[in-house]
Amino acid sequence: MLKVSVLGSGNLGCHMVNLINDSSEVELVQWYSRSEINHEKIEVVNDIKILKNAEIYIICVSDDSISDLSNKLIFNDKLVVHTSGSTAYESINNKNRRGVFYPLQSFSKTRKLNYSEIPICIEAENDVDLNLLVDLCNKIGCGFHKINFEQRKNLHLAAVIINNFTNYLFSFSQKILSDQNLNFDILKPLINETVDKIHKLDPSESQTGPARRNDQNIIDMHIKMLKDPEHQNLYKIISQMIKSKYEN
Amino acid sequence: MLKVSVLGSGNLGCHMVNLINDSSEVELVQWYSRSEINHEKIEVVNDIKILKNAEIYIICVSDDSISDLSNKLIFNDKLVVHTSGSTAYESINNKNRRGVFYPLQSFSKTRKLNYSEIPICIEAENDVDLNLLVDLCNKIGCGFHKINFEQRKNLHLAAVIINNFTNYLFSFSQKILSDQNLNFDILKPLINETVDKIHKLDPSESQTGPARRNDQNIIDMHIKMLKDPEHQNLYKIISQMIKSKYEN
Repeated sequence: MLKVSVLGSGNLGCHMVNLINDSSEVELVQWYSRSEINHEKIEVVNDIKILKNAEIYIICVSDDSISDLSNKLIFNDKLVVHTSGSTAYESINNKNRRGVFYPLQSFSKTRKLNYSEIPICIEAENDVDLNLLVDLCNKIGCGFHKINFEQRKNLHLAAVIINNFTNYLFSFSQKILSDQNLNFDILKPLINETVDKIHKLDPSESQTGPARRNDQNIIDMHIKMLKDPEHQNLYKIISQMIKSKYEN
Repeated sequence: MLKVSVLGSGNLGCHMVNLINDSSEVELVQWYSRSEINHEKIEVVNDIKILKNAEIYIICVSDDSISDLSNKLIFNDKLVVHTSGSTAYESINNKNRRGVFYPLQSFSKTRKLNYSEIPICIEAENDVDLNLLVDLCNKIGCGFHKINFEQRKNLHLAAVIINNFTNYLFSFSQKILSDQNLNFDILKPLINETVDKIHKLDPSESQTGPARRNDQNIIDMHIKMLKDPEHQNLYKIISQMIKSKYEN
């Protein structure tokens, strides 16, 4: 059994604990949480000084707190990894061996995920530790990618665009519909198709719409309909970017 | 059997012909196409003057051409509908009864769709014709919504945002990854989750990311990484809109 402890009990920390706990090949030694948590099967500790021996310690705290938390660890020469998309492993105190275990997924507290579909981006200071992280991914049933810091930062950036910005466009569209007393459900088949087709077609090839076919009448009409200058600006900018992309 | 003819052979026209042809309860009388099409089972005509009697004529041409085409029809008092999201039924010549049959979906020529999942937005000058369109939807197995012009225009606007703009964000993210020698497939589980969760959670409630939690360090880092001023501008604007939305 691979021995792992999880440090942190935010959104990601909770999902990480479930992820580890679901595997019969990994032992979740302890869960460090500053806030009080009662869990039947897991040893939860709120004193960092009583962390027991484990092979991997997974830090699941905000980027700003990684360094502080790693300084407080009272052991040496263990593999300590963080889970951030935008932080170098060097932010972890070098009294321990260091690495990264970044799950490329969006975690909502109330939402149950299919963990086997989460790709984990792994990185480590040395090859032995990288293999240990590969072993962990295999044992919890996740796919993995060996990713350096520059790549990981760009993956995080792309993830923000593809997840956060897309979700914002969803709520923006929902607002347009509710202003017309229309239910958001009407759009869901279209949303499904928008995503389904990326599994078959390259998104650059499947671009459609008024900006793609340079239909300025529709573009102008839509901008007029939006009224709010910020919304108009967003519509203009994305339309312009689509037009430029396909101009040549 | 409900008798229907389709006019136009662009992207939507081809899908409309398949949609009608798949139904055992609708007879596709003729398909009018200016370009030559050979089809074993369908009578294709390129002379608008030889259109036979049908109960519904579905015009599938670009917005600008609807009026012209409807003027050329040599019969009167038939139900003629167009398929545009942004055109009033009044653009159809009033020698015929008029209506709208707007499928809220994105059609790519090379992509086979599950037609039963396409909601059709219908509108007609009178109730008898509206019921005829309801009947057509039922017979081809599509869901329908009775939608007025103002609502339809806003649905089209929302569809552009949710389909075209989202797809642009997909290709934008793909470019960020390919610049780092990373395969777009890494992001696909995240894309799936982004969409899957709208079926369970309201998009306004499931918003996450640096802008949502007002993490200016990450926002600034991402803007710096993007380099291209247009891309930076897009990132800034959407982040600002997310921040404003959740400020209060």
